[in-house]
Amino acid sequence: MVPNPPALASSLPDTTLDLVAKVPKAPLSEDVANSLSAFQRAACYIAAAMIFLRDNVLLEKELQLDHVKPRLLGHWGTCPGLILVWSHLNLLIRDHDLDMIYVIGPGHGAPAALAALWLEGSLERFYPGEYGRDADGLRNLITRFSVPGGFPSHINAETPGSIHEGGELGYALAVSFGAVMDKPDLIVTCVVGDGEAETGPTATAWHAIKFLDPRESGAVIPILHVNGFKISERTIFGCMDDKEIACLFSGYGYQVCIVEDLDQINDELHSALEWALAEVRRIQTAARSGKPLVKPRWPMIVLRTPKGWGGPKKIDGKLVEGSFHSHQVPLAKANSDDSQLKVLNEWLTSYKIDELVQNGKPVQSILDIMPRNDSKKLGQLKDTYNPYIALEKVDWKKFAVEKGADQSCMQVTGKYLDQVFQANPTTIRLFSPDELESNKLSAILDHTQRNFQWDQYSRANGGRVIEVLSEHDCQGFMQGYTLTGRTAIFPSYESFLGIVHTMMVQYSKFVKIAQEVKWRGDLASINYIETSTWARQEHNGFSHQNPSFIGAVLNVKAESARVYLPPDANCFLSTVAHILNSRNKTNLVIGSKQPTAVYLSPDEAAEHCRLGASIWHFASTPLLAKTDPDVVLVGIGVEVTFEVVKAAELLRTVCPALRVRVANVTDLMILVAESRHPHALSKEKFVELFTADRPVHFNYHGYATELQGLLFGREGLWRMSVAGYQEEGSTTTPFDMMLVNGVSRFDVAKWALRAGADRNEEVKVNLEKLVEDVDGRVDEVRKFISEHGKDPDDMYDMARFE
Amino acid sequence: MVPNPPALASSLPDTTLDLVAKVPKAPLSEDVANSLSAFQRAACYIAAAMIFLRDNVLLEKELQLDHVKPRLLGHWGTCPGLILVWSHLNLLIRDHDLDMIYVIGPGHGAPAALAALWLEGSLERFYPGEYGRDADGLRNLITRFSVPGGFPSHINAETPGSIHEGGELGYALAVSFGAVMDKPDLIVTCVVGDGEAETGPTATAWHAIKFLDPRESGAVIPILHVNGFKISERTIFGCMDDKEIACLFSGYGYQVCIVEDLDQINDELHSALEWALAEVRRIQTAARSGKPLVKPRWPMIVLRTPKGWGGPKKIDGKLVEGSFHSHQVPLAKANSDDSQLKVLNEWLTSYKIDELVQNGKPVQSILDIMPRNDSKKLGQLKDTYNPYIALEKVDWKKFAVEKGADQSCMQVTGKYLDQVFQANPTTIRLFSPDELESNKLSAILDHTQRNFQWDQYSRANGGRVIEVLSEHDCQGFMQGYTLTGRTAIFPSYESFLGIVHTMMVQYSKFVKIAQEVKWRGDLASINYIETSTWARQEHNGFSHQNPSFIGAVLNVKAESARVYLPPDANCFLSTVAHILNSRNKTNLVIGSKQPTAVYLSPDEAAEHCRLGASIWHFASTPLLAKTDPDVVLVGIGVEVTFEVVKAAELLRTVCPALRVRVANVTDLMILVAESRHPHALSKEKFVELFTADRPVHFNYHGYATELQGLLFGREGLWRMSVAGYQEEGSTTTPFDMMLVNGVSRFDVAKWALRAGADRNEEVKVNLEKLVEDVDGRVDEVRKFISEHGKDPDDMYDMARFE
Repeated sequence: MVPNPPALASSLPDTTLDLVAKVPKAPLSEDVANSLSAFQRAACYIAAAMIFLRDNVLLEKELQLDHVKPRLLGHWGTCPGLILVWSHLNLLIRDHDLDMIYVIGPGHGAPAALAALWLEGSLERFYPGEYGRDADGLRNLITRFSVPGGFPSHINAETPGSIHEGGELGYALAVSFGAVMDKPDLIVTCVVGDGEAETGPTATAWHAIKFLDPRESGAVIPILHVNGFKISERTIFGCMDDKEIACLFSGYGYQVCIVEDLDQINDELHSALEWALAEVRRIQTAARSGKPLVKPRWPMIVLRTPKGWGGPKKIDGKLVEGSFHSHQVPLAKANSDDSQLKVLNEWLTSYKIDELVQNGKPVQSILDIMPRNDSKKLGQLKDTYNPYIALEKVDWKKFAVEKGADQSCMQVTGKYLDQVFQANPTTIRLFSPDELESNKLSAILDHTQRNFQWDQYSRANGGRVIEVLSEHDCQGFMQGYTLTGRTAIFPSYESFLGIVHTMMVQYSKFVKIAQEVKWRGDLASINYIETSTWARQEHNGFSHQNPSFIGAVLNVKAESARVYLPPDANCFLSTVAHILNSRNKTNLVIGSKQPTAVYLSPDEAAEHCRLGASIWHFASTPLLAKTDPDVVLVGIGVEVTFEVVKAAELLRTVCPALRVRVANVTDLMILVAESRHPHALSKEKFVELFTADRPVHFNYHGYATELQGLLFGREGLWRMSVAGYQEEGSTTTPFDMMLVNGVSRFDVAKWALRAGADRNEEVKVNLEKLVEDVDGRVDEVRKFISEHGKDPDDMYDMARFE
Repeated sequence: MVPNPPALASSLPDTTLDLVAKVPKAPLSEDVANSLSAFQRAACYIAAAMIFLRDNVLLEKELQLDHVKPRLLGHWGTCPGLILVWSHLNLLIRDHDLDMIYVIGPGHGAPAALAALWLEGSLERFYPGEYGRDADGLRNLITRFSVPGGFPSHINAETPGSIHEGGELGYALAVSFGAVMDKPDLIVTCVVGDGEAETGPTATAWHAIKFLDPRESGAVIPILHVNGFKISERTIFGCMDDKEIACLFSGYGYQVCIVEDLDQINDELHSALEWALAEVRRIQTAARSGKPLVKPRWPMIVLRTPKGWGGPKKIDGKLVEGSFHSHQVPLAKANSDDSQLKVLNEWLTSYKIDELVQNGKPVQSILDIMPRNDSKKLGQLKDTYNPYIALEKVDWKKFAVEKGADQSCMQVTGKYLDQVFQANPTTIRLFSPDELESNKLSAILDHTQRNFQWDQYSRANGGRVIEVLSEHDCQGFMQGYTLTGRTAIFPSYESFLGIVHTMMVQYSKFVKIAQEVKWRGDLASINYIETSTWARQEHNGFSHQNPSFIGAVLNVKAESARVYLPPDANCFLSTVAHILNSRNKTNLVIGSKQPTAVYLSPDEAAEHCRLGASIWHFASTPLLAKTDPDVVLVGIGVEVTFEVVKAAELLRTVCPALRVRVANVTDLMILVAESRHPHALSKEKFVELFTADRPVHFNYHGYATELQGLLFGREGLWRMSVAGYQEEGSTTTPFDMMLVNGVSRFDVAKWALRAGADRNEEVKVNLEKLVEDVDGRVDEVRKFISEHGKDPDDMYDMARFE
């Protein structure tokens, strides 16, 4: 075999080698060693065959060019290592009756997972007709891989046992930690590739042990799989020597065991896993007996094996095994080049598959190391496919506030969530990047606390709240927690949620496929609460103004995309109560942490949220406007809606003749053109709200372009106008933020006057004067702000309703 | 003073303490010590005053409630530490005549930076009228801070010396490393807050030393500033003891010096910085004399000081200094509460500002430690504000390919860039997440190489290419490199560029303001090349399909947002040549790495790119279609344009009577409604291309909604239709990707038939039959794919042009 090239020696002192855990290597019994080897050989054979063969899948006749697939797709390099681990986890589960999930960071190693799942019978369980443990099933598995209709080249929700999309790298570790929270008996073994380990999200996820209370939660056994190469270059971790590795991971807080003796890899890896399990138990036992260890050093394993181990050694003079050339398809011309075909044949033959699969079934020796209980097999643990636990509901109306008050959406929601957390002590968590207080949700901490084991003040007390200044960690924890059946909330400053834009997309892709997979059950939705929005980031300034996460959610499939902008505290409560019990959605709820006007009573709020939008007669010009408005003004979002209400108030003063209808949209998705979203209003309802032909102005919280895109396909776009955040703003006053982005009451009022002039003679005649009047008011306010450094005090009085 | 609470002791062995660098503490001379202290006291006073005072700014009379600002905005907690470092960097620059930039991770510490900049006279230099080093200037600085029109609460491009937006946390370190690349004499001192240090991007950016060749590049001295708390909780690093810190950073490859003796902090920090500088010199000298050290252990400093050091100790019974209560405004009621006012007065008085600023000027003792040369002051180094070096141009037409060929946009671009890199050996770099080969740009490596110091095979050879599997690192390096005057390219798989969505937004915000700042010069644009797009991620599958970065760029200000989708290799070359010499833009260019049709000769391509869009007569129905088409079909993006061309070809076969105009858009921004973007087509040009009233179908590479939003405001939207990526696709064939997303030639053709039927009698009569014909062809193709596992071979023949 060809080992990966060694790392340059660092100048760190030799004493650092003492940090490496000394795990005595206990030799395995011959039976077990043979079983492991048989499993590994069989799975490697099947994985390689999946990449290459479309016929003669067990090499029962001489291999021909036309037995090889016309398109060779798949990744070989990581497979042998993933299979090695799988074989040992089998044994560990069997011997200790564990509840274990295997999270595979290198998700392009799907052939490894699928081969192992076929061997253990998990494919048969979930795909009995197609992938049974028989000759047909194996042929299907091999020939249909990476072919339209078969399993794709990356692990996804179709893969039994998986709780992690095999695509964008960096998130496996955080997902694993989220999965074990509040599952004291669960262990996740997580393989992190050395490519993935270079990502930022992984680099900080190693700290996650610091947020895991061993009394209430399970454990993660991370395995850093150093196979030395990425797609086309050496990895950082592949170029670190033992001293660097030992220091780095000891610094993170781990005990590191290095497994790398290729000649005795089974003995060594087995001993390492037994050691890791014993260490986990030691830490858990201490915590559960009331004597938690201080800064427990959780175990981790560094596994060094050659990339593409066991595959072709050299092709065309280039090293393949132990190099990046084995990353993907090592013999790319095996379907056209006889010499490559020959190498393929030698390679595949080396596994002696005829000794391992007989009559289409794995031989007994392979089955011997499987968990005895099917439901404990890595592909069949219920936590991975049908885990959902609904929350005990709490009536939000108990926390509702009086109509006409000024209230912070977040403060009332904090109190509501406090109750929800009490009612659901082990099935809901909140993950936040250190913003709970700042976002005014701190009532949540009335009956629970932050869970941070490295801090003596909150250590070993459990707690529903994890605050870490890593949105990636928060998102990863939420994913793991949700995918194993629980419910999570991720509140965030609006502008920083975009940090996990692509993570959210990856997750949504997983869930989209999960819903198409018959054997997977429902999941809770993932729930984002955005506050500290651009409209009230006048104090932090330009860098804190970015509503782009709305657009991220809009681009996921309509079946799951949900964006809510509740206009007041009661609507906010109603919406949060709704999303916590919704399923399989990506919910984004946007509100304000500042006290803002409460327009609707609890019952009115419930109805408004049910409809998604309604006409606000109380804010509109009375009488005729109900049926025959000159213009329609629509607010979407807390602050911009307030400006609409104030614009209508202003118009009643300066131009009572103009008939103004005010509407509010709380569920953004109702605007989408019919048939493009399940919430989309029917054409009739749309006309009821916005009329068929009157000018409509949307004063919108997000970027105008995205709302314009949503409206496309609705009739009469020519009469519609959209204002939104324009990437303008510095440290200034709240009202100045409205002004500089063109969404202030004055902007809205001027729009209404100009648009109304076409229909209303009185407005038309006086238009110039009216606009001047409004402009004069703008000047006054600007002058006040520049003189006093703050907004005029009456700017935020509730509108006077007539 | 109140120190931060100590960390729990870890169980790491005591030998790990030997990893901490032993730096002898050399006592400073009394003069220098006094000067440092004076600078620190003056700057801390000014910083605190900026947060609180609107009058009586030098406490010349008794402090009254109405001297305090009506809105208290700003962050105190980090300021004392940032000022401490600033004072010492002054000295270091003075004593060693250094070229140094100070990158401040905790960018909310703007008062610290601004106070120091006023003292050193850099504000005076750039804002002579407003912020002179006199009583008026100081009053302006204090009273206008965080007030509309004054400096904002976060460091931004208005702050002299800054090359980093003070907003989203996590990027300071990577930006610092990018800044010193190819600047052998430059040192960046980068303060990373312990909050920021929790982020993933920072966690992996520590590895960046491994990509820095000390022969050709300068150095970064990172200072991890552990002040123990985030907004409302302790930090991970604040809870790590010396052993954990020493192990972690030694593992990353550093030598760590810990500075924490509050009683002798000046002696200790000064010694640490002298040590760090000497270590930098040692590493650089070795490399530059041809004997590079193996895995040089670069110096770094861990600085532990109390949060809000020197501020109020306790308020309302709560600890403030040394706790999170000092993060923002420690005396939030100082403008209304007499007891808080009293504390404020005591606090401010403690600095004895009258001894430090006299007649509006800093006293000589403060000036003594300043760099002698103004242009070396932290606020005035030219590299930070007027650094741009234009590239030597290389004629792209030398690399152009023949019309009618099949060519990979990336392969020809790789060859072109190889030449550009040779012509500009120290002013252009490429940063990529391990995808150069995979993206077929590897010709770049013909005359340069990858720069990875930990790998014995590429160590100490320099090189224009850095490949690290961290998009955050790539983006940070690009930012630092660009902000100090050079040009960078960031090629990426399309789906993973979204990882740096918010980083790009932060950067664009910095550049937007930089352009408004008179004293800042131009910068190169930042340049993204997206390839391996969803349209050709049929092999990696669903997780690798995500064109959302287009939307991210669309949301930045129109002045800088540029999105190009060149339809063929010649257009791609022309576009890349253009962007490399553009300035201050955020350029996104999207193409294919696969060989695709070349439609245009080099000259035609140049003209097409200049216009941004044109009618493709060669692909349209001849004659009448030029002036009077029934339908207009528009391709935007490589693969979807090919489908449009093939649809027109198909229509010529099945329905020659239908008059089809084919157009291509290469510059997405030309579509935007007039006045909304500098590239927007005039109404007349828009009508010339797309007619005034004929049905137009856009076959678009991105999400339909975003294009619909762009078109909003154009006339006649009712006749326009948009198809784009619909979040559909698995591991399948390239053509199946077109089918499942509704952008195939057949979808386009059917749309054309249905839309054309309204205008064309012959089509109308035969519509049903024609559509059936097309559907039949779809069935045939689907059948072929499902039988053969690949697309029919003739699917990708160039269209037959008549």
